[in-house]
Amino acid sequence: MENIKIGMVGYKFMGKAHSHAYRDLPLFFPDTLRPHMKVICGRNQNDVAKAATQFGWEEYTTDWKTLLQREDIDLIDINAPSDVHKEIAIAAAQAGKHIFCEKPLALTLRDSRDILEAAEIARVKHMIGFNYRFAPAVMLAKKLIDEGRLGKIYHFRAWFLQDWLVDPNFPLAWRLQKEIAGSGSHGDLGAHLIDMAHYLIGNITEVIGMNETFIKERPISDNMTGLSATSSGHRGKGPVTVDDSTLFLARFENGALGSFESTRFATGHRSTNSFEINGSKGSVIFDFERLNELQVYFTDDREDVQGFRRVLATDPAHAFAEAWWPPGHTIGYEHTFIHEIVELMNSFRENRQPIPNFKDGVKCQQVLEAVDLSIENRQWIHLSDLD
Amino acid sequence: MENIKIGMVGYKFMGKAHSHAYRDLPLFFPDTLRPHMKVICGRNQNDVAKAATQFGWEEYTTDWKTLLQREDIDLIDINAPSDVHKEIAIAAAQAGKHIFCEKPLALTLRDSRDILEAAEIARVKHMIGFNYRFAPAVMLAKKLIDEGRLGKIYHFRAWFLQDWLVDPNFPLAWRLQKEIAGSGSHGDLGAHLIDMAHYLIGNITEVIGMNETFIKERPISDNMTGLSATSSGHRGKGPVTVDDSTLFLARFENGALGSFESTRFATGHRSTNSFEINGSKGSVIFDFERLNELQVYFTDDREDVQGFRRVLATDPAHAFAEAWWPPGHTIGYEHTFIHEIVELMNSFRENRQPIPNFKDGVKCQQVLEAVDLSIENRQWIHLSDLD
Amino acid sequence: MENIKIGMVGYKFMGKAHSHAYRDLPLFFPDTLRPHMKVICGRNQNDVAKAATQFGWEEYTTDWKTLLQREDIDLIDINAPSDVHKEIAIAAAQAGKHIFCEKPLALTLRDSRDILEAAEIARVKHMIGFNYRFAPAVMLAKKLIDEGRLGKIYHFRAWFLQDWLVDPNFPLAWRLQKEIAGSGSHGDLGAHLIDMAHYLIGNITEVIGMNETFIKERPISDNMTGLSATSSGHRGKGPVTVDDSTLFLARFENGALGSFESTRFATGHRSTNSFEINGSKGSVIFDFERLNELQVYFTDDREDVQGFRRVLATDPAHAFAEAWWPPGHTIGYEHTFIHEIVELMNSFRENRQPIPNFKDGVKCQQVLEAVDLSIENRQWIHLSDLD
Amino acid sequence: MENIKIGMVGYKFMGKAHSHAYRDLPLFFPDTLRPHMKVICGRNQNDVAKAATQFGWEEYTTDWKTLLQREDIDLIDINAPSDVHKEIAIAAAQAGKHIFCEKPLALTLRDSRDILEAAEIARVKHMIGFNYRFAPAVMLAKKLIDEGRLGKIYHFRAWFLQDWLVDPNFPLAWRLQKEIAGSGSHGDLGAHLIDMAHYLIGNITEVIGMNETFIKERPISDNMTGLSATSSGHRGKGPVTVDDSTLFLARFENGALGSFESTRFATGHRSTNSFEINGSKGSVIFDFERLNELQVYFTDDREDVQGFRRVLATDPAHAFAEAWWPPGHTIGYEHTFIHEIVELMNSFRENRQPIPNFKDGVKCQQVLEAVDLSIENRQWIHLSDLD
Repeated sequence: MENIKIGMVGYKFMGKAHSHAYRDLPLFFPDTLRPHMKVICGRNQNDVAKAATQFGWEEYTTDWKTLLQREDIDLIDINAPSDVHKEIAIAAAQAGKHIFCEKPLALTLRDSRDILEAAEIARVKHMIGFNYRFAPAVMLAKKLIDEGRLGKIYHFRAWFLQDWLVDPNFPLAWRLQKEIAGSGSHGDLGAHLIDMAHYLIGNITEVIGMNETFIKERPISDNMTGLSATSSGHRGKGPVTVDDSTLFLARFENGALGSFESTRFATGHRSTNSFEINGSKGSVIFDFERLNELQVYFTDDREDVQGFRRVLATDPAHAFAEAWWPPGHTIGYEHTFIHEIVELMNSFRENRQPIPNFKDGVKCQQVLEAVDLSIENRQWIHLSDLD
Repeated sequence: MENIKIGMVGYKFMGKAHSHAYRDLPLFFPDTLRPHMKVICGRNQNDVAKAATQFGWEEYTTDWKTLLQREDIDLIDINAPSDVHKEIAIAAAQAGKHIFCEKPLALTLRDSRDILEAAEIARVKHMIGFNYRFAPAVMLAKKLIDEGRLGKIYHFRAWFLQDWLVDPNFPLAWRLQKEIAGSGSHGDLGAHLIDMAHYLIGNITEVIGMNETFIKERPISDNMTGLSATSSGHRGKGPVTVDDSTLFLARFENGALGSFESTRFATGHRSTNSFEINGSKGSVIFDFERLNELQVYFTDDREDVQGFRRVLATDPAHAFAEAWWPPGHTIGYEHTFIHEIVELMNSFRENRQPIPNFKDGVKCQQVLEAVDLSIENRQWIHLSDLD
Repeated sequence: MENIKIGMVGYKFMGKAHSHAYRDLPLFFPDTLRPHMKVICGRNQNDVAKAATQFGWEEYTTDWKTLLQREDIDLIDINAPSDVHKEIAIAAAQAGKHIFCEKPLALTLRDSRDILEAAEIARVKHMIGFNYRFAPAVMLAKKLIDEGRLGKIYHFRAWFLQDWLVDPNFPLAWRLQKEIAGSGSHGDLGAHLIDMAHYLIGNITEVIGMNETFIKERPISDNMTGLSATSSGHRGKGPVTVDDSTLFLARFENGALGSFESTRFATGHRSTNSFEINGSKGSVIFDFERLNELQVYFTDDREDVQGFRRVLATDPAHAFAEAWWPPGHTIGYEHTFIHEIVELMNSFRENRQPIPNFKDGVKCQQVLEAVDLSIENRQWIHLSDLD
Repeated sequence: MENIKIGMVGYKFMGKAHSHAYRDLPLFFPDTLRPHMKVICGRNQNDVAKAATQFGWEEYTTDWKTLLQREDIDLIDINAPSDVHKEIAIAAAQAGKHIFCEKPLALTLRDSRDILEAAEIARVKHMIGFNYRFAPAVMLAKKLIDEGRLGKIYHFRAWFLQDWLVDPNFPLAWRLQKEIAGSGSHGDLGAHLIDMAHYLIGNITEVIGMNETFIKERPISDNMTGLSATSSGHRGKGPVTVDDSTLFLARFENGALGSFESTRFATGHRSTNSFEINGSKGSVIFDFERLNELQVYFTDDREDVQGFRRVLATDPAHAFAEAWWPPGHTIGYEHTFIHEIVELMNSFRENRQPIPNFKDGVKCQQVLEAVDLSIENRQWIHLSDLD
């Protein structure tokens, strides 16, 4: 198998990001297996046809069920709205297709587990789209931890701050409706933080959280796709049924303490996805708005020159950097997806599961739900209670 | 009354900071009432004699009880270790002396209330040493909030990160012993964050926390004063009886969500005392290590130039700034104490209680204890339960 | 004419950057004319064949002269080494091809003018690759100036700092040889600063400079393409014939003062391409290592909140931003080339010369040579002396 | 001699800064010789009387000539306007008094040399007030260079940016009149940069500069002391006779290249006094607005964690830090003067000339004048031409 033939379901924000990653891969990673952009699938025929042309897919369809049965498709890429992940993913697995699914894996822990189970029974490859793992600066943090250069980890604090809901007239987009989105900032933003914690620190043992919906009602939207939405105001207001903000405290298996905050009401923060880790030998700080940078501190630096270093992860010593431009020449958001696809392609060549995969998606969902349960019950929840 | 005659109990870290503030006040604030540095009091005669000379006090004594009875003393400044605050403060009130007491007011909420009650019965002035309120950049944040320029407040997040305990061989200083210090990072650092929250945001209604002592035993110290301590290692190890780190979540009366973290294990942070506030119209970010700066964001900036501004609070428009140097010339940590003394002196001239005073100390202690109770009981605690 | 059929000469660093830009364009700018990647040309048949496949060109050739004569080619993209720009560009113009040429236009001012003249006689479109103009943050600076929001400009200071030559064992790459590169840091890095000055501030009237070659001899290189080079050390050392660093002062027609520095010996700076502009109403600061950010200051901000704002140029209000990702999601170095190609394509649709074009290339070269002349003669040089 | 008895001439901005330093010294540096604040001298009797009280001087006088003859005065501190430095300093030397003189030493190189000569003939101690040398972060830079940790120095670039003259209605203060101030931004701000270069890098061999007075006329001031000035506008306008901005390029004896800029028209910069040094083994960056910080880079850091470190110079390993507060607790502008006085006092105990002294003042003046000459003659000037 030389090329991996892709059928993609979804064509909005993530559809564009994934398509671009497939297209760019061979230029920057010529020795990697090639994704073959066969078919793109969406509900609206005109729109998906246009997307096929724009993104560079050979064909388009509006019928995902048929797509799953095609012999000339190896992998189904699912980036449709979260509420349809489950049905498509399970059907894809049953059709024997490998799966690359955007996060969240599903709207509930139970659904996530059903998907994982289906994929495992079918013995297909499964990957989940936690793309932030693939920022070279994040991979540097991982490397420092794995090599013991930060020592024993004491603290993980993470926050994903956005501000697009501060305007009370922002309409009731699909992301604000529980039945479609499953969750608000918690599932959308917090999920990334949780996965980052799993990737960098390890398992969480217990959590307690709180959340809030600051603006309880919003104008009903005239059109509800992607991130943007508009409202003429003629359709009245409807209730926001997801959280605007969720915070929680956590303990990790390794003894570290965790603090998590995700919000869409952090005025001034367009997309501050940030974490800090403090260990016995060093610390790191990452901020997605300065994607190429990692702040790094070591206790064994000479005593007169101790301080956080601003490392630009664009040197040959950094993951993926040599595929791009000379040192000091930065990459952007979309590159995290390209690196993600490198991992996906490598999992084929090396005949293994890609990382992160549906197990990571389930694990993330378990924490999300434990937090929700802790909020509902106003008490600490052990993760093991949800096993 | 033209000068305020001071008797000070304590002569270590805070004693030096207060003494310097009294000395510097007339130079920079010549129109303010003058503190008259009469008597300094401490347990060790040699040391307090030396301190008297160095700091510029007219007399010294080792007998605080007699000091309280002197006719020529108007105000008692208490910055002795926390465990003796109560006895001295109540006696001072009963002797009719005004009181300026370092934080924490006492080791327990009950003791704090007793002190406040004594001061109120005696109708003396009482001030508590939450000096960070007096950084001009913090006062700018307060002004922006009070003038409604940040709008409705949604988020307050604050962290006080230090790293002086990361070395497991750091000895068992008095600050690590519950019977003297009352609390660890929570009471020492967290108290400042809580007061900042009260000052800037308002009352907290409920909390839930967690804490940890990462290093359970440390070498017994040969000498245990001030911040520093040394250990020869000959005296074995003893148990650390306070928290190394405490985190908690909080809800405010005004609907805002709060996140607090204080730790002495944040490698690389010598003293990062920082907060961020997000409101419907704007946000501010403060970091004590860049004491003169406030990051400020407004939603009504023109849409192509929205971003956090780095405001250097050294312009004539900023609190206290004209007393110092030209714009762009920064001040340091110790200046917060000088501003604090300005407030103390002004309370005499204006015949009112200074702010913050013992009520703020009690309020802070109530949150500290509510957090401890929430940790002990593993559940949310309403502040009103401790009324 | 719906597609613009491209023949590209060169396939190394810039060849890759241009190829990627052509490829990505239709995905992100679907309404723009499409570049059609017809033929790539290079001297080494194996390498250019490999590049053709990797970059996505339909054909490859090693014969640029024949390429110029092909009827099915509209535009020649020249990114071969600087010493061959002249011959190819003039021949391309004479063949009636439009031309997109990487900077520098040529090795000398005279050659640059010959190229411009040839293009003007042939009435073809001509563009030059000053890609940094196309960073949205830079375009924001331009907009603020053009709208008068910075007022009268007093100061322009710019520096392009790299550090790849600090190691004295770095070999004698082609960029260090005057006969191929024409110039060292001055022509390579300084040229970008000069073009930025022209773009943002306007014409320069006089200059005086100094330069230095800190390491006079380096190991002769075994292989000399692109930015990287290796040396076995077996071939001895050879003289570095270009400048390691050039600084100059300048006056602008509008009365502003300029300061320029380019160096490959600024240890710790991988690629700090930065400028600051101070005007009577405001200032801006740009740093390429934080490509998406512009620091902006306005004198008419309220007096208590004056400070540089960190504007992330990823909002809908910013140039090109809506073609990419949601606010807060950054782009990278390569995107400047994509924007450049948008301008190139738009010049076809709008039947005009693209900007910047060869006139800008000549103007830049005139300043470069004036600086060199000022160094040689140790005196100020009026730009008009080189007219 | 246990105390050094001070007579101070001048009582404005620098008078306050010096007075405060004398006052604070014994508190923070108790083991240092003590300055005894005997007499303050100024032209206006009311004002100087008030200053004496406010600053804490025992006596005041309006007659500096008599002051110089007093037996009970050891040292004359001169911080009166620059145009009177010469007369007072020479008279003080002739009276056998030690001298601490604010910068600039005098208005011209010739005058500076006369002062130095007088001091040397009289064999008195002489110090000049280049206070920025005494910021601990600057002293760390010096230490790193002296210990060879930055290697061979290639680049020094420095800029002192202020913005208080951007408003064209700012009146014609004394600092804008050549006959009193001697020079504008060049002598006021540039002098600090030049001294920093001498301190950190070494001797300059040649320079070439340019300058500009952007606003040629300003409202005549009603009152002209200190930094501030007011104008009713009733007195018409007068010519600004000093430079608003001066830039120059320089070569150092050790082969390094230097770039200097001082301006009062850098909108948004209240007082950015900054430098960067690049050496073969490392680099440092300092900015006075973040006085406690030094950015430090080393080439021998591990290749995956190379980057500028933000060192907070408040650790015990840093100069003077232990006299102040715990690590992370910053100091301000005025502390540079206190450290300066430590050096002054130590020169008495150690029976040596303080550093920097009048030789440094002369050396600085020589560069200032060489730059002015280079501007006048529009050519490079060798420093040796002014020997």
